[in-house]
Amino acid sequence: MRLLLATATHAQAWRDAFAAALPGAELHVWPDAPPEVDYALVWKPPPECFARVRVRRAIANLGAGVDALLRVPTLPADVPVLRLTDAGMAEQMVEYVALAVLRAFREQREYARQQRDGRWMPRPRLDKTSYRVGILGMGVLGSAVAQGLLPLGFPLAGWSRRPRRVDGVATWSGADGLDRVLAGTCVLVCLLPSTPDTRGLLDRRTLARLPRGAHLVNVGRGDLVVEPDLLALLDEGHLASATLDVFDAEPLPAGHPFWHHPRIDVTPHVSAATLFHASAAQVAARIAAHARGGPLDGVVDRALGY
Amino acid sequence: MRLLLATATHAQAWRDAFAAALPGAELHVWPDAPPEVDYALVWKPPPECFARVRVRRAIANLGAGVDALLRVPTLPADVPVLRLTDAGMAEQMVEYVALAVLRAFREQREYARQQRDGRWMPRPRLDKTSYRVGILGMGVLGSAVAQGLLPLGFPLAGWSRRPRRVDGVATWSGADGLDRVLAGTCVLVCLLPSTPDTRGLLDRRTLARLPRGAHLVNVGRGDLVVEPDLLALLDEGHLASATLDVFDAEPLPAGHPFWHHPRIDVTPHVSAATLFHASAAQVAARIAAHARGGPLDGVVDRALGY
Repeated sequence: MRLLLATATHAQAWRDAFAAALPGAELHVWPDAPPEVDYALVWKPPPECFARVRVRRAIANLGAGVDALLRVPTLPADVPVLRLTDAGMAEQMVEYVALAVLRAFREQREYARQQRDGRWMPRPRLDKTSYRVGILGMGVLGSAVAQGLLPLGFPLAGWSRRPRRVDGVATWSGADGLDRVLAGTCVLVCLLPSTPDTRGLLDRRTLARLPRGAHLVNVGRGDLVVEPDLLALLDEGHLASATLDVFDAEPLPAGHPFWHHPRIDVTPHVSAATLFHASAAQVAARIAAHARGGPLDGVVDRALGY
Repeated sequence: MRLLLATATHAQAWRDAFAAALPGAELHVWPDAPPEVDYALVWKPPPECFARVRVRRAIANLGAGVDALLRVPTLPADVPVLRLTDAGMAEQMVEYVALAVLRAFREQREYARQQRDGRWMPRPRLDKTSYRVGILGMGVLGSAVAQGLLPLGFPLAGWSRRPRRVDGVATWSGADGLDRVLAGTCVLVCLLPSTPDTRGLLDRRTLARLPRGAHLVNVGRGDLVVEPDLLALLDEGHLASATLDVFDAEPLPAGHPFWHHPRIDVTPHVSAATLFHASAAQVAARIAAHARGGPLDGVVDRALGY
């Protein structure tokens, strides 16, 4: 089996991981580009990649989000694209979101401010029975986050494009469903993929439907949020805080107003790091099964964008 | 049934809660003090309390820790003392500790500093399989905290005076056991009661046994920790942070070095607030059963101090 590895970063780590996961394969690392390979293993590949190399069987995206790959102009239309599903990311996402939800519910920002002021002032406990966490995107990661939050006792709502049932979660879909989820949500967790339907979804209109004092956690993609609208709602006091791991432009540019906003927490796209060995093992198992004549797992619906 | 309610704070809230929980009882609120009552319901009662009022059956402490009550000089030696167990505190404690553990593991303090510096720098994920959380005190609250942390996937160790078995937790007891727990613990969670055996337990000698870079979370009692020793170990860089909800003196005095220490988080004794109605319901059920001739639940062993 002949493979091409073309990644914008961490080429050595990916090569080592795939060498371990597929020891019998002939692995070429970009820019070592043979005219034809069976499978391509890519993360933000160079624009000319698929012009120089014909991929016969499938293209594996070495991340969960395929938005960057689907924008590569040379991407062949007739080759299946697959993406990572979980591969160690769900556990990390649960940690990140649970941390953000608990910080909001236990008012850590307020207690930190009181500490700075040298003020000893117990605050009345918030009512957990009405402290709903709303999750946008109920795929593998969103469902894992819901399951991870359940033992903490928060009421949960989930929203997805297609109707879904998840134990312990009030689920909704469609535009009406979105409004209903937003209306009663104290912490909104965004785990949606970036697609033509979701880009800019969290704008002034939708964010304003959250109750006053709500918190936003964005771990999906930066372009789901209209950044100036978010800033305005924070500055007007409608939103209490935003915990942001993803941004329109990454790295977040110097001087961007998010860096020093008192009610925004910035992390550098680390909510769920891609784990090289777990990810290579998943991709290796999928393409090995496919190469043996089996079905291909994890294939993306390009029209939907995920 | 004649009752005396004597609390240093929140007398009205307690009165309302007990009036609801024991509607048939004759409830006196200090300083309305009849010469004799069947049961006393107290929280940090005035020193003269038990000199003026004879308590026939039992004294219920309206908190989990009885250290303050056992220091009241007039406390009769021959009347059983009971204390709250859980009564809504365990759930809150799980939240507080999970938040502190996740903040440490996901390096929130470091990311906040990077944000202040405008620096985009993903940090390598810490190894969870060796990121052990050690819990001192495996009673009702400690066991609940362990159960709450289990789904997050951290290895757990627990220490208690008497040997205990808790599913999913490596448990130890005794002085040797304490050293073994400390040696491999990245986040030390202290939930011990304040007793003659535990006061000052976390001093330079014991805290120095934690590995370099460890974090302390104290939600037990302030006097378990030797405050100057903790400060020294933080300033020497042996400990990475301390999350403190309890202190030698409460409210934490103005000018205390904890207020403005960059690696200490102070909260004003809010990790697990006493819930008036849940607590009154627990006490009411216990004394009603006792008054009917049944056994008394939640009795404190005064020699042990909890």
